[in-house]
Amino acid sequence: MKKLLVIGIGAGNPDYITMQAVKALNQVDVFFLMDKGQSKDKLIDLRREICERYITGHDYRFVEAHSPERERGEVDYKSSVDDLNLAKQQTFERLINEELSDSQFGGFLVWGDPALYDSTIRILQAIQASGACGFEFEVIPGITSVQALAAQHKVPLNQIGRSVEITTGRRLAAGQVSDADSLVVMLDAQDAFHQVVDQDTEIYWGAYLGTPDEILISGKLKDVADEIERVRKAARLANGWIMDTYLLRKP
Amino acid sequence: MKKLLVIGIGAGNPDYITMQAVKALNQVDVFFLMDKGQSKDKLIDLRREICERYITGHDYRFVEAHSPERERGEVDYKSSVDDLNLAKQQTFERLINEELSDSQFGGFLVWGDPALYDSTIRILQAIQASGACGFEFEVIPGITSVQALAAQHKVPLNQIGRSVEITTGRRLAAGQVSDADSLVVMLDAQDAFHQVVDQDTEIYWGAYLGTPDEILISGKLKDVADEIERVRKAARLANGWIMDTYLLRKP
Repeated sequence: MKKLLVIGIGAGNPDYITMQAVKALNQVDVFFLMDKGQSKDKLIDLRREICERYITGHDYRFVEAHSPERERGEVDYKSSVDDLNLAKQQTFERLINEELSDSQFGGFLVWGDPALYDSTIRILQAIQASGACGFEFEVIPGITSVQALAAQHKVPLNQIGRSVEITTGRRLAAGQVSDADSLVVMLDAQDAFHQVVDQDTEIYWGAYLGTPDEILISGKLKDVADEIERVRKAARLANGWIMDTYLLRKP
Repeated sequence: MKKLLVIGIGAGNPDYITMQAVKALNQVDVFFLMDKGQSKDKLIDLRREICERYITGHDYRFVEAHSPERERGEVDYKSSVDDLNLAKQQTFERLINEELSDSQFGGFLVWGDPALYDSTIRILQAIQASGACGFEFEVIPGITSVQALAAQHKVPLNQIGRSVEITTGRRLAAGQVSDADSLVVMLDAQDAFHQVVDQDTEIYWGAYLGTPDEILISGKLKDVADEIERVRKAARLANGWIMDTYLLRKP
């Protein structure tokens, strides 16, 4: 039986990797690298660096596959992701069939945690359900950017006995969030924090968390929202890409 | 300057510890162990085991402090936690003043992640604000039981493009949750999943996650809710304590 390991490698800092992930890395024969476009070269490099640092005395190779891009523009988000995942599913099936022999281990290195805003688990389940190829898989959790954010700002995610909602910039912009007093926003490409009505809300913002390029800004929205927008824009321009997240806390 | 490290040691499995946590453990001169009661002896033992396994060539000692218990019964939850944290704050101040000399490192080993349903960060911030003793502190994130749960069940926490709410059993029982289609419930002492109206909701339940005693049950509430209640009760009786969490996913 082929075996796939979906390995959470944490958010940015190679020290975020767990002992469980290190053990998993050392079992993998073939790593599948799925990143897209030139702006993500740095993320591919970080994956290679993690393998070089933590794999000892075990042969492995990388297979890079062109990762299909999500169709943007005037299409429904959910269906564009569904289409994307179907295309990824075909790519994954090909990789598993062609690049992995029986009893070998394949590895997917996932930023953060495979359970949060990542499609690898969903795609592998779809392949298993389709019966297109036989394999087992395991999931190894990793430190998310949400946790890196809280740790670097030294703030709890929740208020005492209260809920935390983790959501997307898209949903915040569309007003599709609950009234949770702690709201974590990921995947925000449009500075959706400007939509928050109560300008006394505290924001804890972080970009490139856990890396040498890390930027942290916190304060009341009325004081720092414009600064975050400015810093974010400049950083994205300078680096060619940005990964950021933030916690909103009601006053 | 005294330095305190609030170290997330992950949920149960010693392999959940990160490289960052291992480095932090190796800096600590004095570990403060705050667990309470005989039922938590196993958790103290696990902490000692983690130190023995990962600390190399560095002297350290443990200081056990009686951890105050939260007042239960007919008191408001928030104020009982506030009172508890005030008592803990005094204990922490004493430990920092009496057990740590200048330039030494103190360590708090926190199950899961210090940012999620743990009071250590909040208490240290309160001490700093009070000026009662001078120190710096750092937070090292850890794998939460939420992530262990998702990994062991091999399910994503979120649906595509949707939110995840992390909440408590107390809030679920009181109906104080949003209509998020993915709801993670922690600290549920009262089988609050029985309160969920739509019995076609999927539940992914796990206890003692990441340990040899781990139990996983999943299915529609109408099929497994009674089984979870029964298994949970028996396991708590057998072990003297239980730590469990679950994900509810709307159909």
